[in-house]
Amino acid sequence: MKIAIQGEAGSFSHQAAMRMVPRCLIVPCARSLEVFDRLERGSVAAAVIPIENSLAGSVAEHLDLLLTRRAFILQEFRLRIAHNLIAARDVKKSDIRRVYSHPVALDQCRDFFRRHPHIQPVPFYDTAGSVKHVIETRLPDAGAIAGRQAALVYKGRILVSGLEDDKRNFTRFFQIRKKRHLVREANKTSIAFITRNVPGALFQALGVFASRGIDLSKIESRPLRGKPWEYVFYADFLRGDDEVARSALRSLRKLADLVKVLGIYRAV
Amino acid sequence: MKIAIQGEAGSFSHQAAMRMVPRCLIVPCARSLEVFDRLERGSVAAAVIPIENSLAGSVAEHLDLLLTRRAFILQEFRLRIAHNLIAARDVKKSDIRRVYSHPVALDQCRDFFRRHPHIQPVPFYDTAGSVKHVIETRLPDAGAIAGRQAALVYKGRILVSGLEDDKRNFTRFFQIRKKRHLVREANKTSIAFITRNVPGALFQALGVFASRGIDLSKIESRPLRGKPWEYVFYADFLRGDDEVARSALRSLRKLADLVKVLGIYRAV
Repeated sequence: MKIAIQGEAGSFSHQAAMRMVPRCLIVPCARSLEVFDRLERGSVAAAVIPIENSLAGSVAEHLDLLLTRRAFILQEFRLRIAHNLIAARDVKKSDIRRVYSHPVALDQCRDFFRRHPHIQPVPFYDTAGSVKHVIETRLPDAGAIAGRQAALVYKGRILVSGLEDDKRNFTRFFQIRKKRHLVREANKTSIAFITRNVPGALFQALGVFASRGIDLSKIESRPLRGKPWEYVFYADFLRGDDEVARSALRSLRKLADLVKVLGIYRAV
Repeated sequence: MKIAIQGEAGSFSHQAAMRMVPRCLIVPCARSLEVFDRLERGSVAAAVIPIENSLAGSVAEHLDLLLTRRAFILQEFRLRIAHNLIAARDVKKSDIRRVYSHPVALDQCRDFFRRHPHIQPVPFYDTAGSVKHVIETRLPDAGAIAGRQAALVYKGRILVSGLEDDKRNFTRFFQIRKKRHLVREANKTSIAFITRNVPGALFQALGVFASRGIDLSKIESRPLRGKPWEYVFYADFLRGDDEVARSALRSLRKLADLVKVLGIYRAV
């Protein structure tokens, strides 16, 4: 089964996709738009996208694409972000003088650089891409920081693992499909809605859920493109009784300019 | 007056700081934590930080630092993000074969690369940093994409301006101070609050504002570090009558585990 991801092979999206669909074939795309294009055209069966990191926050571009494009969430997966020092097979840890990675990843491994002051961190545009770079250019004194999948993909060696300072670093990934599938044991719903531009509109919208005992596990507003000071809200709620959830959405549709169900899925 | 920013000199933060405090002295810091450290220590008088981009979303790290550190918002400024092709003074546009920049900036200038297929985009870790790189290494066939301040700082030349595809690209910046200042004509308030972990808690919290006719212009939830599934909410509201706003905050304090006023400031 072909699964599109944004970014290089060996990325954390690649890792999450392998956990959700063990024998899938990864199709790396340079841009997130291309991921959604491939899904709509049917050249891949599914896509796996990061949606929220526990330290860095939401991936706004992916929320906006879920709103505007044809896609439906099938599954949520929380991946723990673990960083590894990876180098070419003939490079020893004592050879390393420079370590490439994305600035966010370098920043999450500060203790390592403090303990190894002779090693210089070098910012690079991508974690998996930095592994590709040090291995393809055969740098004899350089390593890269990335997830373990990058070592597998580019045939590098993991010299040190668990480099991250904070172990409570998780990213939520969605597996998305072009069409809606009925998932047994779905326990979570994600929606987007645009309220009318009147005072108290959000309060009324939330009342639809509160009055039915449905608790939102997440809410986030995003500015609407081209409409300054107007917002779209993204919300998640845990799914209890199906009929109660449906009645809440019916009431919300009466209050809001737009309601889109982004997915009814199983979160693990 | 010394103002700390995160990132290289010549960045959009530098540009925003110059607009807010025209003759300030910029202190570039590698990390956002360092910006807040300097502010607390008093080695700078103020800091300027990006908080939300209209296309990319909130800067989660800065929201979290406003919650946990000692800082108060004095002013908001919306900067239009305009991209320029910048090169060393002796490089002509016809010489250019490679253009360096942050992947997000490259992505926002797709039309330019479509119209110039002989020019290759090269991902780099920072926009202003890419200008510094092409000028310091004297690359004869390379340019970089960044804001105009980067051309001033690194003595480069702007070969093309207005490279961005979407002109509706704004970033909100905050000028922050260590201590609270009373601002005349303050028209906006930003708060953070943590609700008790009971169903309907957010709905009740919003009721405090709705019942007083105060409309939230933004709301966003962020997971609490180390407490999975617990959230902190960030909200902005336009400030009308001062006494009404104060009474709303008093009621919110009775409902919430924590309420922090991040700033009462003037937004322009």
